[in-house]
Amino acid sequence: MSAATLEAVLGYCFQNKSLLELALTHRSHSARNNERLEFLGDSVLGTSVSSLLFHRFAKLNEGDLSRVRANLVKQAALADIAQRLGLSEHLRLGEGELKSGGFRRPSILADTLEAILGAIYLDGGFEKAQAVIHQLYEPIVKSIDPQTIGKDAKTLLQEFLQAHKLALPTYTVVATHGAAHSQQFEVACDIAELDIQVQAAGASRRAAEQTAARQALEKAMAAKPAGGARKAVKRARKAAQLTLPVAVAQDAR
Amino acid sequence: MSAATLEAVLGYCFQNKSLLELALTHRSHSARNNERLEFLGDSVLGTSVSSLLFHRFAKLNEGDLSRVRANLVKQAALADIAQRLGLSEHLRLGEGELKSGGFRRPSILADTLEAILGAIYLDGGFEKAQAVIHQLYEPIVKSIDPQTIGKDAKTLLQEFLQAHKLALPTYTVVATHGAAHSQQFEVACDIAELDIQVQAAGASRRAAEQTAARQALEKAMAAKPAGGARKAVKRARKAAQLTLPVAVAQDAR
Repeated sequence: MSAATLEAVLGYCFQNKSLLELALTHRSHSARNNERLEFLGDSVLGTSVSSLLFHRFAKLNEGDLSRVRANLVKQAALADIAQRLGLSEHLRLGEGELKSGGFRRPSILADTLEAILGAIYLDGGFEKAQAVIHQLYEPIVKSIDPQTIGKDAKTLLQEFLQAHKLALPTYTVVATHGAAHSQQFEVACDIAELDIQVQAAGASRRAAEQTAARQALEKAMAAKPAGGARKAVKRARKAAQLTLPVAVAQDAR
Repeated sequence: MSAATLEAVLGYCFQNKSLLELALTHRSHSARNNERLEFLGDSVLGTSVSSLLFHRFAKLNEGDLSRVRANLVKQAALADIAQRLGLSEHLRLGEGELKSGGFRRPSILADTLEAILGAIYLDGGFEKAQAVIHQLYEPIVKSIDPQTIGKDAKTLLQEFLQAHKLALPTYTVVATHGAAHSQQFEVACDIAELDIQVQAAGASRRAAEQTAARQALEKAMAAKPAGGARKAVKRARKAAQLTLPVAVAQDAR
């Protein structure tokens, strides 16, 4: 694919084409690579997304804004956008990375996207970079629920139960298996008032609790599908769909 | 002091004066406060400083750029700039904060400065905010050594010795005193080839090692003041002066 195709997908035409080439050059390819552009692009991306969120969610406090932003600019979200743009076809990788499938690696895709944004900033200024970023993110921002995105399952379950004026769940370690270096934890999550008990396993107590909370949340939503807390249910459902980062971009299509 | 004074010091005149007032309003003063503006300003500051460093230090890699930036936008550095601007005279604090000296608190000063930068961005756009930030930071950026700023004493000592082709220092815990909750560590730092041994104490092994490294670095610099590694000596000396964040701004005056 040609650079022109990529420019068309980005909605930006470079004055200095060598900047785009540099942005696409991974450190495995040459010493002159995209790492400094990535440093710049990471910042520009942060500011543009901050501005987008600031204006769109006028009532969100700074803690929630930070949580939402962190979720939108994390590696998985960026790699997802990079994939949509077909970035992997344009990467300039060293031989080793080419052979080991570097063009699919989320870190390389995310870093390259940031470098491209840094290159647009250098080439056309902040407003141009911001316009590209807003165009990439507007559909994503429309599809998210700022109250839930980036919250873990335990937090979501707690908020769901509070919205229904129910007591908080209890978590109990019911068993541990295996030797010290490869232990498995089994955790039960109880919601007494809804008569829900689920068990889940994980490599740490925390991981097992999160899995159990996710399953308990699904059951709780089924048991309390509507009523006064309809909004909370909708939110929790939307958040559950968004557990896989790829869902963010798919929603946005 | 009037808002006009502050605008003059900042070199920016607000179209919407209420944005400046909001930026000066701490959460202890009212529910409508500067926290959302701070979220925005923190990003704008990061991008502007990134851009400044990117252009000024064309040969610095992204890791070093990140280290330098982290040092220039950390709370102590921001509080220092806020002090230079006389921000404490303009803060709108609640009664409790007023009585407890909130106008001197580094966190409040730093957050308010970020909020003001966010307000300028909203009021005048990115270029205007960037111009204000560049004006604040250009003297600081001129006074720092990008190779050393933000590096700890152990790293600086190691780099100094390597520049002189000397073996690395050894650190030894020579004693611990006190009960578990208030232990004191005594650490010796040896540079065999220079016949230097210093001892220092600290509340953790790490803290004691850093203090010992700082003292050993001073002695090493006195023992090896010139010669082939003149540049490294100069750097280490400059870095030692910059240990206190206040020195950054003082150098810049």
